Amino acid sequence: MRAEIITIGDEILIGQIVDSNSAFIGKALSKIGVSVKHITSVGDDQNVILSALKIANSRVDFVVLTGGLGPTKDDITKKTLATYFNDILVRNDKVLAHIESLWKTYIKQPLLQVNKDQALVLSTAQILINDHGSAPGMWIEKDGVVFVSLPGVPFEMKAIVDNVLVPRILEKFKLPFILHRTLLTQGMGESMIAELISDWESVLDSEIKLAYLPNLGRVRLRLSAQGPVKNVVEEKVQLAIDQLLPLIQDIFVGFEEDDAIEVVIGKTLIVRGQTLSLAESCTGGAIAERLTSFPGSSKYFTGSLVSYATRVKHDVLGVDKEILIQAGVVSEAVAKEMALKAKDFFKTDYAISTTGNAGPTTSEGRVTVGTVCMAIAGPQGVSVFSFQFGNNRERVISKAVNKAFELLYHELLKNASKEV
Amino acid sequence: MRAEIITIGDEILIGQIVDSNSAFIGKALSKIGVSVKHITSVGDDQNVILSALKIANSRVDFVVLTGGLGPTKDDITKKTLATYFNDILVRNDKVLAHIESLWKTYIKQPLLQVNKDQALVLSTAQILINDHGSAPGMWIEKDGVVFVSLPGVPFEMKAIVDNVLVPRILEKFKLPFILHRTLLTQGMGESMIAELISDWESVLDSEIKLAYLPNLGRVRLRLSAQGPVKNVVEEKVQLAIDQLLPLIQDIFVGFEEDDAIEVVIGKTLIVRGQTLSLAESCTGGAIAERLTSFPGSSKYFTGSLVSYATRVKHDVLGVDKEILIQAGVVSEAVAKEMALKAKDFFKTDYAISTTGNAGPTTSEGRVTVGTVCMAIAGPQGVSVFSFQFGNNRERVISKAVNKAFELLYHELLKNASKEV
Repeated sequence: MRAEIITIGDEILIGQIVDSNSAFIGKALSKIGVSVKHITSVGDDQNVILSALKIANSRVDFVVLTGGLGPTKDDITKKTLATYFNDILVRNDKVLAHIESLWKTYIKQPLLQVNKDQALVLSTAQILINDHGSAPGMWIEKDGVVFVSLPGVPFEMKAIVDNVLVPRILEKFKLPFILHRTLLTQGMGESMIAELISDWESVLDSEIKLAYLPNLGRVRLRLSAQGPVKNVVEEKVQLAIDQLLPLIQDIFVGFEEDDAIEVVIGKTLIVRGQTLSLAESCTGGAIAERLTSFPGSSKYFTGSLVSYATRVKHDVLGVDKEILIQAGVVSEAVAKEMALKAKDFFKTDYAISTTGNAGPTTSEGRVTVGTVCMAIAGPQGVSVFSFQFGNNRERVISKAVNKAFELLYHELLKNASKEV
Repeated sequence: MRAEIITIGDEILIGQIVDSNSAFIGKALSKIGVSVKHITSVGDDQNVILSALKIANSRVDFVVLTGGLGPTKDDITKKTLATYFNDILVRNDKVLAHIESLWKTYIKQPLLQVNKDQALVLSTAQILINDHGSAPGMWIEKDGVVFVSLPGVPFEMKAIVDNVLVPRILEKFKLPFILHRTLLTQGMGESMIAELISDWESVLDSEIKLAYLPNLGRVRLRLSAQGPVKNVVEEKVQLAIDQLLPLIQDIFVGFEEDDAIEVVIGKTLIVRGQTLSLAESCTGGAIAERLTSFPGSSKYFTGSLVSYATRVKHDVLGVDKEILIQAGVVSEAVAKEMALKAKDFFKTDYAISTTGNAGPTTSEGRVTVGTVCMAIAGPQGVSVFSFQFGNNRERVISKAVNKAFELLYHELLKNASKEV
């Protein structure tokens, strides 16, 4: 089954928002064996939407639209769909009752005509109830092509996809098994890796697709394959991986599972009953933010001291003034002290520290932009590291955050083997 | 000038990454008067890319492609463009010299054939030099349509767009003036606002487009217009705004400028020579992360104590144990103490605190998921607030961060008028 995702809204085209809806839907569909071939974004313009529908209709079997279902005049998706399918809008009493109950519980304001009109749906549509909002999803079939219209508000859309759309697709269609396996590597550029594995790649099963995904100091190798029988696909990909691994053993870090590395770290710490704290300078809270974006982080994450001003490193965290002056704020010596002090300060098993110059200028410290020092204090002692992450602020911070997780992950692995 | 952005890569379609490149390019083009009509994402598949090129060629004047320019076998954009334009790839010596210099300075590894091949470009292309990487951008003109191919690595792409592509477009084309003005409102849903301003909207100049953008507790109203003469467009939109403002005076917060609210806050504090610190619980470092993602934040932002564990609120920050027990961890009383203690702890003029239950379960505290208490301590005292942000973790955290900035912004405005 080939799919196209159409996201609707001028705000996407002018870059006022980043369209993350299509990535969410793409992931959800890929996982169950629907092959997303196109993502298209168009503005709030009836003719352009009609033309996008026509093109999608001609090239895929399944179309998911998001956006333009709100109650205001710029929301034209429903009307446009009615035009496209030569259908009319009719009131759905179940949806109206749901809207009335939402208004009674949360909004506590009189229900306006435009809100009631949210219950108008295409007469030929099946309704996908939106638990979190007033705009229902719709499922419309025409000449063997399915069109699904979803609200553009991300958490409303996500709940409908997970709870209603995916189960319905699985119930209605017999889908192939699609497998993506991603290998994380570090320490070598993509062209060197390509050279290293070229013999393997040249005889790779033609039904397996290989992609190189370089990103912030790491290259991910993704193998993708699909077929009707799960076992056959899995065995084929596993065989390719078994042949690949010996070639990349020096740079192989692990498999990218559904879990992000920070989730794997969290699970490991929870299982071991251990805790983590942070002393963040140049990462400015970004490590804490990533950890706490996942539920359950309070089970192992105690806290972070974001010591952005130098005096906080001394006054609050207690880093020795002599070390700050002699080694400089951005130094391995200060990173080491910060990690050790944070471990004491928060009374945790592990602590990570970061200090660096994320840029854009070198005025503040004496080190060049992009220099980052980090330390990891743990039950076995403390390790310090220095890096040069280039001259782009956003990139320096992101690379530092990724590196911190990578270092801690290796530290946890090392300590596990020591404990054995 | 009508434009289409085409982003290339299977990783976009399967949701392995969120395509933020197209938002960046969309914003950059809109700003200079290029009207982005379509964004299209396709996989690493020659036929699909060819078909996307053909469709774009038929409906716009300007096409920007990103991705697929790397040195590995899955990078097929250049070869596909050569096929599409019936052109050949030739070595560009200037690009080759640039690649050799990059390798000498940063990579310090032998230059492989695949790296040298990065200097192969379409014979009819003009080169857009990529200072930060080895894949050059290309500018190809055919039958009045311009095709620009850019690397997919965001910071490489961004530098080419800002430093090379935008200046070249401005030099080559006479563009209309496009104006977007966005008004921020809070405290009323989009349907109520639409009702409130319906008379105004019904007589709105037909060349002005109005959009309602509801997001996390705020509705943004965007007015867009374009025309050949800057003054005429500006006056037309200003007139509409002048008529709109009295109608929404109770909910109007301000204009959304290019600057995010956290940048406005930072500028205000720097001008006043004042400082800010944080005590973050449920936001887990997300407020600090947002502040420090902008350069210059070290001039006013001192630090954040991310007190994720309850005992840190007491042991480190010094919140009274009695208050923690009696009022509960998530309470206005604790928020107030946290803000006051953080102000002392970091010795700053302002401090913001957050404590809440971001979910997904209520097991930890006694308050329901979505309850967030905040306080702002400043020179004039401390203010406390309580909110209910719903039951979606990501949304609760994002809403809390937005709300914190909004509250501080209002506090700063209030104090400015007191000081006068």
